[in-house]
Amino acid sequence: MNTIHKLTEYFSKLPGIGPRQSKRFVYFLLSRDNVFLEELSKLIISLKKDVSICRSCFRYFPSNHNTSTKICDVCSNKNRDNSVLMIVEKDSDFENVEKTNTYNGFYFILGGTLPILERDPNKKIRIIELMKKVESNRKENKLAEIIIATGLSTEGENTKDYLVSKLKPISEKNKIKLSLLGRGLSTGTELEYIDTETIKNALQNRH
Amino acid sequence: MNTIHKLTEYFSKLPGIGPRQSKRFVYFLLSRDNVFLEELSKLIISLKKDVSICRSCFRYFPSNHNTSTKICDVCSNKNRDNSVLMIVEKDSDFENVEKTNTYNGFYFILGGTLPILERDPNKKIRIIELMKKVESNRKENKLAEIIIATGLSTEGENTKDYLVSKLKPISEKNKIKLSLLGRGLSTGTELEYIDTETIKNALQNRH
Amino acid sequence: MNTIHKLTEYFSKLPGIGPRQSKRFVYFLLSRDNVFLEELSKLIISLKKDVSICRSCFRYFPSNHNTSTKICDVCSNKNRDNSVLMIVEKDSDFENVEKTNTYNGFYFILGGTLPILERDPNKKIRIIELMKKVESNRKENKLAEIIIATGLSTEGENTKDYLVSKLKPISEKNKIKLSLLGRGLSTGTELEYIDTETIKNALQNRH
Amino acid sequence: MNTIHKLTEYFSKLPGIGPRQSKRFVYFLLSRDNVFLEELSKLIISLKKDVSICRSCFRYFPSNHNTSTKICDVCSNKNRDNSVLMIVEKDSDFENVEKTNTYNGFYFILGGTLPILERDPNKKIRIIELMKKVESNRKENKLAEIIIATGLSTEGENTKDYLVSKLKPISEKNKIKLSLLGRGLSTGTELEYIDTETIKNALQNRH
Repeated sequence: MNTIHKLTEYFSKLPGIGPRQSKRFVYFLLSRDNVFLEELSKLIISLKKDVSICRSCFRYFPSNHNTSTKICDVCSNKNRDNSVLMIVEKDSDFENVEKTNTYNGFYFILGGTLPILERDPNKKIRIIELMKKVESNRKENKLAEIIIATGLSTEGENTKDYLVSKLKPISEKNKIKLSLLGRGLSTGTELEYIDTETIKNALQNRH
Repeated sequence: MNTIHKLTEYFSKLPGIGPRQSKRFVYFLLSRDNVFLEELSKLIISLKKDVSICRSCFRYFPSNHNTSTKICDVCSNKNRDNSVLMIVEKDSDFENVEKTNTYNGFYFILGGTLPILERDPNKKIRIIELMKKVESNRKENKLAEIIIATGLSTEGENTKDYLVSKLKPISEKNKIKLSLLGRGLSTGTELEYIDTETIKNALQNRH
Repeated sequence: MNTIHKLTEYFSKLPGIGPRQSKRFVYFLLSRDNVFLEELSKLIISLKKDVSICRSCFRYFPSNHNTSTKICDVCSNKNRDNSVLMIVEKDSDFENVEKTNTYNGFYFILGGTLPILERDPNKKIRIIELMKKVESNRKENKLAEIIIATGLSTEGENTKDYLVSKLKPISEKNKIKLSLLGRGLSTGTELEYIDTETIKNALQNRH
Repeated sequence: MNTIHKLTEYFSKLPGIGPRQSKRFVYFLLSRDNVFLEELSKLIISLKKDVSICRSCFRYFPSNHNTSTKICDVCSNKNRDNSVLMIVEKDSDFENVEKTNTYNGFYFILGGTLPILERDPNKKIRIIELMKKVESNRKENKLAEIIIATGLSTEGENTKDYLVSKLKPISEKNKIKLSLLGRGLSTGTELEYIDTETIKNALQNRH
């Protein structure tokens, strides 16, 4: 198999990219100059070297290899509220929440969601790491609330149920509030078209 | 103008119907038998006769002309909770909420929404009728909560603001709770894609 | 069942209309004045009386009941070229072709398409009437070409094959040209995305 | 700017990729192992080395650097019909036509399309190289037909008009047929919905 085909195959593994668009990427690269290709190639090869996983929240962050820091800028920010911990599925969820400038607590990146009937949750999400973090935060006596902020897809809901079952004992014993994101109408919604579940939530959470 | 064109024009006034689909409706009718056309014609002409506007909630309901009843089956249902009143924009909103079987109070149909900067709200929504109903319900000492359930479109939000400004005095004076439908994540939502406003609401309304 | 429900049911039979939009139609009608409903009702009831099927091309056309004319304005137009006959599936196809002002011959409306393996073609399309018309046109010695202008859906193609098999004998015997609409690239097409069949046709029909 | 941002920026230059999907690509790469990243990086850097532009048709093709061949496998295929030359906009057009197995002649890749009123066509398409190739093919007395196979977008049509104006003199002088892809109905089309231009073409090119 030649380089065009091999590269097409690699690009078609990118999320949301089919074989046709993947081929277009290759032709696009062929039309760029050598500097572009070299720079892109270099960025890809140095990606893992330049990026670390935060030992505290497990998100990817740019690392400085001169120092031994393995804690991201959010987790090491003294101005953030260390009494609240928000659990999200993935890095892009974290980014979207950060962008809103409405949350000042800490995060934990689960690294995925839990399929229904999954026998080994540990293989799909960082449940062991989460429990450890909660336990250590608790011991330092600073944890007042854990927000489970998984999505409302079927797998997201399943993950939420699993997290609740795992976190409830520690939450009750230590009076840590265990909360879920509010549910109800989202921007632009028309009452005429919303589903039963969302109407129920909107009624229950009326204020 | 001939009948085909005239009927096409009438059908193209139906909500969401353009001239092309409208023409297809006419051809469809031409392909039906006479009984179908006669029955459809009869139903349209008798629509207003067979349907009344409820004097209490202002929704359309099938009326019995032998009796002088002008109150719909929901408003005259003694098993419903007469301490709660939900204000919705239109009949189809009412229907969607009823379908969920989660609300047992009464309704008020506004009959529309309020465009921004509208000078004469009374021309767009039943604000006078609403104020009268709230006043009379209050006097009978039965009103405990008013739920403003307008949609989250720009006009729906503007309508909500207007209703709050009109209802706040009477609500505060008489200790009637004035509530809004809960806002936040709706079924199927992924955290990665939701807008700032909805994230704010979901955080604020976490539980 | 009450009038609202019955009318909703009737509207939901219109092509492309589901129960929800159908209900919106009813509420829309309820919001109109009596004059609107009366006029619409009258148009529907008089539709069949005011519209005839042309005895020559079988399309619907506005008829004048004072005269006994049962031939539409296109078929009775002496300026049109009576040597060409175009066979189309339905009235809206006829209308779309007329709108282009590029065809000056006559038409025949099949009244439908032929599903694959249909045992009784006569029940689905006006094949008997078509054969009669072709025969009579031929006898008057005026038919030089028959254009089969069915669509390129699977059923349209099946109908075309059936028409070709039926018309070929009469066409060959009498030297009437039997033609199909040209196939190939249509407006806006990008070569990169077109299907094999269309590329084949575009190559074959290059000019 | 850190590596995550830089790589996101590079990916967002790929055709059809916005900043959000681009970021997802980066996170996807972070989740792969080192072998994946190294291989991808290597493929990109070696792309231009492993791929040449054919000196005859100007398409990209995998090159063998041991030999000095700069002619692609299609252009050097003795079994192909050297009397026909098809001009296409880009490599993916070539690929789509090849896939159909219906064309056995040669190709020329223009490398783009001509915007309307473009003053310097040579900067946008390989017009000089095309004229040279046509001239040399003609001299070898083998060229019988040139097929202009640009797309039916506005720019594609403009490119076609320009090519016709440039190729007509040489075509007429040397009795080389200058042809365009057939236009008309494409697979799946319904007569009811097609545009005037396509109906005109379909009627003109009926057969």
